[in-house]
Amino acid sequence: MSVERPKNIQTRSGPHERLARLRVSLSELGADALLVSHLPNIRYLCGFSGSAGLLLVTGSASTLFTDSRYTFQAREEVTGARARIVKQGLLRAVGDALRGRRSRVAYAASRMSVAEKQSLDAQVGRGIRWVADANLVEKLRAVKDATELATIREAAVVVSDVFRRTLALTKPDISELELAAEIDYGIKRSGGSGPSFETIVASGPRSAWAHARPTRKPLGKSGLVVLDQGAIIRGYCSDMTRTVHVGRASARTKRLYHAVLEAQQAAKHAIRPGVTAGEVDQAARASLRSSKLDRYFTHSTGHGLGLEVHEMPRLGRGEATALEEGMVVTVEPGVYIEGFGGIRIEDDVVVTARGCDDLTTAPRDFLEI
Amino acid sequence: MSVERPKNIQTRSGPHERLARLRVSLSELGADALLVSHLPNIRYLCGFSGSAGLLLVTGSASTLFTDSRYTFQAREEVTGARARIVKQGLLRAVGDALRGRRSRVAYAASRMSVAEKQSLDAQVGRGIRWVADANLVEKLRAVKDATELATIREAAVVVSDVFRRTLALTKPDISELELAAEIDYGIKRSGGSGPSFETIVASGPRSAWAHARPTRKPLGKSGLVVLDQGAIIRGYCSDMTRTVHVGRASARTKRLYHAVLEAQQAAKHAIRPGVTAGEVDQAARASLRSSKLDRYFTHSTGHGLGLEVHEMPRLGRGEATALEEGMVVTVEPGVYIEGFGGIRIEDDVVVTARGCDDLTTAPRDFLEI
Repeated sequence: MSVERPKNIQTRSGPHERLARLRVSLSELGADALLVSHLPNIRYLCGFSGSAGLLLVTGSASTLFTDSRYTFQAREEVTGARARIVKQGLLRAVGDALRGRRSRVAYAASRMSVAEKQSLDAQVGRGIRWVADANLVEKLRAVKDATELATIREAAVVVSDVFRRTLALTKPDISELELAAEIDYGIKRSGGSGPSFETIVASGPRSAWAHARPTRKPLGKSGLVVLDQGAIIRGYCSDMTRTVHVGRASARTKRLYHAVLEAQQAAKHAIRPGVTAGEVDQAARASLRSSKLDRYFTHSTGHGLGLEVHEMPRLGRGEATALEEGMVVTVEPGVYIEGFGGIRIEDDVVVTARGCDDLTTAPRDFLEI
Repeated sequence: MSVERPKNIQTRSGPHERLARLRVSLSELGADALLVSHLPNIRYLCGFSGSAGLLLVTGSASTLFTDSRYTFQAREEVTGARARIVKQGLLRAVGDALRGRRSRVAYAASRMSVAEKQSLDAQVGRGIRWVADANLVEKLRAVKDATELATIREAAVVVSDVFRRTLALTKPDISELELAAEIDYGIKRSGGSGPSFETIVASGPRSAWAHARPTRKPLGKSGLVVLDQGAIIRGYCSDMTRTVHVGRASARTKRLYHAVLEAQQAAKHAIRPGVTAGEVDQAARASLRSSKLDRYFTHSTGHGLGLEVHEMPRLGRGEATALEEGMVVTVEPGVYIEGFGGIRIEDDVVVTARGCDDLTTAPRDFLEI
């Protein structure tokens, strides 16, 4: 467990400062305004955590449009923007606000449905030019400030502690679903607002399903168990996988486990500012190739995490994003062999000035239980 | 608790039959093919429950496109469609399948992002005419078969039982978050694969937030507590709200509670085949108006539920959808008074030949605990 903190991290960036930085990048993009439709982006920029909202950021003002279910919540949460409670549809209200203007409005084509865009187009008039938002907010979000880092670290420690306690329950007779229930319960009892995704407990041959859902199947007397779990603390996510073995494992299983662990270490060693996300992915892949296991590694090496459990950057093949100090990513190589089982080991790390630090504190040793 | 079953319900509609019915409505729409992008629709039509997929239904074939994470899962789950594991992007694979054809392809403009549509348009060529899918699959899904009804009933009973057990824990010192953890744990221990949405426990003045998230705040010695919870059983959701009072309640609180309960009964009495969803909503609203409380009722009266916790039909103002036997809806009027608190009572009901039946079995009496 590392307690070293990254050095050049901003202490805290409140909504006002985030909006100020956003306006700089907006103007670099040649846009006068940004329409934010992705809820985690809205939360990042103005604090609102409700499930329905649109945020319109112009050069001089920010307006959050939400509905009457969120009147009180908006009043309590929103900073740096004016909240407007809308009766007749959020898109119509945004359309009203834009109508008659002449401006270049950035938006996320990947975060707005064709129907929503058609509805907006029908209302805003001819003065509005839509431009791609180039993931401006996601890029800001990728680099965490000190408060965000402390929160993600807390979420990573919570789930590490829950895992340690879960080990005592990991027995042949318990079902995948029961064990997942214990994990989720442990997360909430430890102050998490919930799991950051549907907890995975996949045993025996089902461990070869990288995204298995837990079933009523008991773990069984002998076999691999993949446990993939995360906690949400004050909106921020952690994400951790451990693979354990019920009963005594074969030599082959142990060999596979150590190959995956080596690949994870290779990827972690590759992480530092300036290295591309794709190079980190390559490091894991090259390590598995040396054990002739790369063809069983069927997903990417990791992903950013923060207000979402999957965010920028993605540590995948050929990804050109250069890592920066303060980014938080998962490192999670795995091998999946049909009929045999799967092994994945996943930690959350923060990019530091010279490398990376583990946020996850759970043990990585091969455990036969 | 009602045990009467609706009479004219289809016993079971497997993927083949659902696809057959879909093809009839597709041809009525004048389309040759349907591109299904909404995951619950995909699950309904071919059984696949993974988190990435596109289903292309033509007059003669159905193809599920998914990625390598789901190779084994697709093999196990998919019926009535051919599964294709795609390496270079699902949209590109669909584009390849459509390129060069001349056909009218229905799609859901509300379920596809502008970016996805642009990517498809760039690939399919000029022979493809896109037409709106008119919610064909959602309309099929709105009317449940007997197996679906039994599953939703099971989910409603699970959450009713969990609520009864939760009452023993509902005490001044427990926090909203701890109580939510107990509910979620209870759902999973009862065989649910999880809560069907983020469980709401909102106490005191926070109960006036219709969509409050549970916090570390203890319930407190005296005040309203809104508990909104649902279970997922084999993919199907329940959704139930109860409002209880910690300590002795004022006469005003009791009066409000009974007004909400009356509004709920008025809405249930209005439900039967042929009545519109808007008329049911009106019935609840008129009942609250007679107590001068309608202005505190800030959301719609209910919504369909099934593979999603919100689906067709919506019981809201002016909704013209006519109810049909076998539809399942929530009935959940509420009043929310800032600074005072909120009261909501929500049950799941199935539309029968002559009215509706409760699926939810938890008591509706006003409880001071």
